[in-house]
Amino acid sequence: MNTRFTNDLRIDGDRLIRRIEELATVGPIEGGGSCRLALTDEDRAGRDLVGAWMSEIGLSVSVDAIGNVIGTRPGRINGPPIMTGSHIDTVRTGGRYDGNLGVLAGLEVVETLERHGVQTEHPVAVAFFTDEEGARFPPDMLGSLVYVGGLGLEAALDIVGIDGAIVGEELARIGYRGIAPCPGPVPHAFVELHVEQGPVLEAEGITIGAVTGVQGISWTELTITGQSNHAGTTPMNLRHDAGYVAAAIAVHLRHLALEMSDGRSDRQVATAGRLDLHPDLVNVVAGLATMTVDLRNTDEKLLRDAEAELARFVAETATAEGVTVAERTLARFEPVVFDDRVVETVAGVATELGHSVRQMPSGAGHDAQMLARVCPTGMVFVPSRDGISHNPAEYTAPADLVAGADVLLHTLLALDAADFDNETKRIVEGRNQ
Amino acid sequence: MNTRFTNDLRIDGDRLIRRIEELATVGPIEGGGSCRLALTDEDRAGRDLVGAWMSEIGLSVSVDAIGNVIGTRPGRINGPPIMTGSHIDTVRTGGRYDGNLGVLAGLEVVETLERHGVQTEHPVAVAFFTDEEGARFPPDMLGSLVYVGGLGLEAALDIVGIDGAIVGEELARIGYRGIAPCPGPVPHAFVELHVEQGPVLEAEGITIGAVTGVQGISWTELTITGQSNHAGTTPMNLRHDAGYVAAAIAVHLRHLALEMSDGRSDRQVATAGRLDLHPDLVNVVAGLATMTVDLRNTDEKLLRDAEAELARFVAETATAEGVTVAERTLARFEPVVFDDRVVETVAGVATELGHSVRQMPSGAGHDAQMLARVCPTGMVFVPSRDGISHNPAEYTAPADLVAGADVLLHTLLALDAADFDNETKRIVEGRNQ
Repeated sequence: MNTRFTNDLRIDGDRLIRRIEELATVGPIEGGGSCRLALTDEDRAGRDLVGAWMSEIGLSVSVDAIGNVIGTRPGRINGPPIMTGSHIDTVRTGGRYDGNLGVLAGLEVVETLERHGVQTEHPVAVAFFTDEEGARFPPDMLGSLVYVGGLGLEAALDIVGIDGAIVGEELARIGYRGIAPCPGPVPHAFVELHVEQGPVLEAEGITIGAVTGVQGISWTELTITGQSNHAGTTPMNLRHDAGYVAAAIAVHLRHLALEMSDGRSDRQVATAGRLDLHPDLVNVVAGLATMTVDLRNTDEKLLRDAEAELARFVAETATAEGVTVAERTLARFEPVVFDDRVVETVAGVATELGHSVRQMPSGAGHDAQMLARVCPTGMVFVPSRDGISHNPAEYTAPADLVAGADVLLHTLLALDAADFDNETKRIVEGRNQ
Repeated sequence: MNTRFTNDLRIDGDRLIRRIEELATVGPIEGGGSCRLALTDEDRAGRDLVGAWMSEIGLSVSVDAIGNVIGTRPGRINGPPIMTGSHIDTVRTGGRYDGNLGVLAGLEVVETLERHGVQTEHPVAVAFFTDEEGARFPPDMLGSLVYVGGLGLEAALDIVGIDGAIVGEELARIGYRGIAPCPGPVPHAFVELHVEQGPVLEAEGITIGAVTGVQGISWTELTITGQSNHAGTTPMNLRHDAGYVAAAIAVHLRHLALEMSDGRSDRQVATAGRLDLHPDLVNVVAGLATMTVDLRNTDEKLLRDAEAELARFVAETATAEGVTVAERTLARFEPVVFDDRVVETVAGVATELGHSVRQMPSGAGHDAQMLARVCPTGMVFVPSRDGISHNPAEYTAPADLVAGADVLLHTLLALDAADFDNETKRIVEGRNQ
């Protein structure tokens, strides 16, 4: 690989920021963020807007059977593309950068190449993947998972959302059940630009993160069945309070995470983000509680330790209270390690462009971790103010947005010139699981 | 007062049970219970049914300005009535006996008097009061509270429910914003028959409870504001997790209640029955949590101790997590002591009818505790299987339902003959607070 990566090409920062702002007005929520839960009308409106931009800048746009949208610019050879992209679906309280930045920066890369008449060796593809957030349909990163063959298309189309909707029906309803096949073509390489969504870069005053991998993720839904009863007449020792058990689990998660983080080098996080009681009334002991547990660790063994400790506590507490607990796995991904060569290319490009850079793992899941199953993959992070994300207050300074997009541009160009060992481009089918 | 209370009069048990079953089909829910939240369409349908029964048996029916419905049978004198009754609204997961038994047994009392041509000294009135449960509009026992002048009519009509509906508008919508004035006439005495909703009578094999008073009730809504953030990238020690604080409070309530119950003679109960997170998603640290706390004790001082301990823990935990907590009192009633003479009349009647009886406090709030502010008042309890209530599985054996109604009949007749000291019939206006 060439050690001199960059030339004078730069993306158009004003246009990038203008598009980020325009996309944020689709599914607007108080505080300047967006709500575009996957496959809702708001998601459709966002897809229509970004798809129109893709067409305007001359990309040939295809939609695959799980709704992933890919815009491609031809290369000198008609082979596997250099791919970039991310997602435009959001959580219910989404910010304006999460996912959107990576997609819209991909458009900037293409427009910059176009404007300067740069011919790449490989085609350049910009994708936005379906349901990265998993906030409506578990698991998260659904579209990229299906793209790489990690989940069969039929199984994915049958997934039922938290509102009872079905993926296949919703895709058809919003007009994004496309005809391009899943799994999709294996890229030459994949690089995703994303906001960090954590506090590390800002705290250290660094502009670019060269992401080394992604934490493993374990999502479990617990349905706790006790007995609803009168809050005034039922002695404490005769209760089968599903709400109490849910609360005890949520409190234990905090203790578990703090203990595992203090005593060991790897950081463990644990979150009970969803907790619903039934009948959810002031004077009734809850007979039913559903809650979710989100565990993450960069070390697979430690993540399993956390899962085991959770299971032990749930069993013990359920027995003591006389309730039953049903568990359902919503998502389970092992930690991912990105391709050293891509990580080093990102770091080298950033340095050459004059930006401070550090290597770091990602705390959040990203589509890149799915693509890493089939091709050399990496990510570029830019700082998030106060580490805030999944919140309308999510913010990245304009200069950092532009820096990230320029690093993306030159990383893709460097990878275009790289002659990766064919061994690394494993075929999708071989990785099905 | 006469020490020989009873004669051969008995209510019609089959008809009582038939009416209970018919009323349970209004707003039916799975498991044989009912959902008639106050002032909903289902509540209206229940009101229409019971009101029609009142008219059929010859009662003159009036509706007051807060929607309380009172059917009256004339007495020999046109003075204050002997009153009985309860409520027909339910919680979301209501059983078929809670409230309904007291109202429908009141109808039996009137029909039995009618069938045997018994002329009472005082009029006999059967009431069902609005929104006893408080499950939609706080506080609970709203209709009887307004009836005795404990809350002004205008303030009551302005109350906003958990669904944003307004009492006055909903009363008008369902056609139960009546013209009889509030506060209403002070009864000669008030007796309410109710299922125990707790396990004591069944556990001791006793048929009738002569209720000595009602636990004090303290309901608080806590709104916890933290910061919603990404569950994967936000280190545990940088979180402002409203959901964690809510869970910690719910767990602490359990400890508080167990500790206060073990160490002291009075029983303390504590419940977090409602707990809602926002955005309530698996991968987002909750930025907002609302929850309710229900504290009850028969001793006012101990109840205040529990409130103080809750406040201390909430403040401590909020500070440690960096969240703010807003508190709102939904209901606060001091413990109530019923009139000795009524309690003893209930116990004497039960014994004379051949039933086992014990004196006991009520763990639940009841309309009777409001009437106790203005006239001699008591209650009759019958057993609840497994102590279950606010649940479709709520059950009282038919023989116990009939026994309770017969005790109610003869208690009312005994009180009709009693010459209560006028001092005890305090005028409503003097008790306004």
